[in-house]
Amino acid sequence: MEIIYFGSLKTDYIKKGIERFEKWLKPYTKLKFKNLPSGGDIHRNSREKILLKEAKTLFSHIDEDSYLVVMSEHAKGMNSEKFSKLIEESEVYSRKLCFIIGGYLGFDDSVYKRANMKLSLSDMTFTHEMAILLLTEQIYRGYKIMRGEKYHY
Amino acid sequence: MEIIYFGSLKTDYIKKGIERFEKWLKPYTKLKFKNLPSGGDIHRNSREKILLKEAKTLFSHIDEDSYLVVMSEHAKGMNSEKFSKLIEESEVYSRKLCFIIGGYLGFDDSVYKRANMKLSLSDMTFTHEMAILLLTEQIYRGYKIMRGEKYHY
Repeated sequence: MEIIYFGSLKTDYIKKGIERFEKWLKPYTKLKFKNLPSGGDIHRNSREKILLKEAKTLFSHIDEDSYLVVMSEHAKGMNSEKFSKLIEESEVYSRKLCFIIGGYLGFDDSVYKRANMKLSLSDMTFTHEMAILLLTEQIYRGYKIMRGEKYHY
Repeated sequence: MEIIYFGSLKTDYIKKGIERFEKWLKPYTKLKFKNLPSGGDIHRNSREKILLKEAKTLFSHIDEDSYLVVMSEHAKGMNSEKFSKLIEESEVYSRKLCFIIGGYLGFDDSVYKRANMKLSLSDMTFTHEMAILLLTEQIYRGYKIMRGEKYHY
C-alpha cells in the first residue's frame, strides 16, 4: 500500500502524527510514502503547466496495475466502515492500492481519468499535509475495523 | 468563540497542532477551549448514564444564548466556504458560537435537541482529538476565506 503526495511534508506535528500511525500499522501492512516534487511555482507557471508536469511525474512512479485512489474534495465521501472494506478487498484481490494526494491546485484531468476511484475525506478543504495525516489514520482505523479490534480515541 | 470537548487531550502532536492554529487565530478571534470530564467508564456504567451525565455537565457550562454547533458524524457536512459564512454570520449577529465535540459514545438526545446546528466534519470517523484539531484548522481557514487572505497549505 502506498500514499503518494506532491510537495513536501514540512510541519513537525503532522510528521509526528504520521509516524505514530506508521508504527502502529506495522503489524497490519507495509505502508510506503512517496513524496513527488511539486510541478512548479504558480507565480511563474500556469496552473495547467504545473498540473501536467505533476501528472507526468506521477505516471512515471506508478505501475500499470496500481489501483489508484485519487483524493479529491469534489469526489464523494465514504464512511470508515466502507473504507475498511476497500482495504479488505484490495488485500483479497491483491490490488496495489495507491492513494494520491495532490497539492492545492488539484490534478490534471489525465490523473482523474486514470483513477480507479475518487475519494473525498471531507466536504471541507484541508491542507494537503493534514490530508496525509487523516488518510493514514483512516488506513489504521480500517485495519482495526477489519480485525474487529477496539480503537477508541 | 468556544470549543467544548469531553475527555482529555493527551496526544502531544495534536496539542502542538492546536496550539499552532490558536496562535494564528489571535489576530482574528479569541478561541477558548473548555475541557469537560468524561461521563464515566463504559466498563462500569451504561452508555445512557454516561451520556446523561455529560449532557448535564455540558448544560451547566453553556449560556442560554449560546449558539450550539454539535459535531456529529451523522449530521450533514459543509464545505469550508459555507463554514466561513457560519462564522461571519455569528460575528454579524454577535452570536456566542460554541462547538461541542463529544466522546466516542456521542451525545445524549437532549444535547442534539438543544443544538442550533449539527455538523459533520467528514463521513469518516476520526478520533475526538483529531476532530478538535480539524475544527480549529477550519475556524482559522474560515477567517482567511472571510478576509480574502491566502492560505495555501
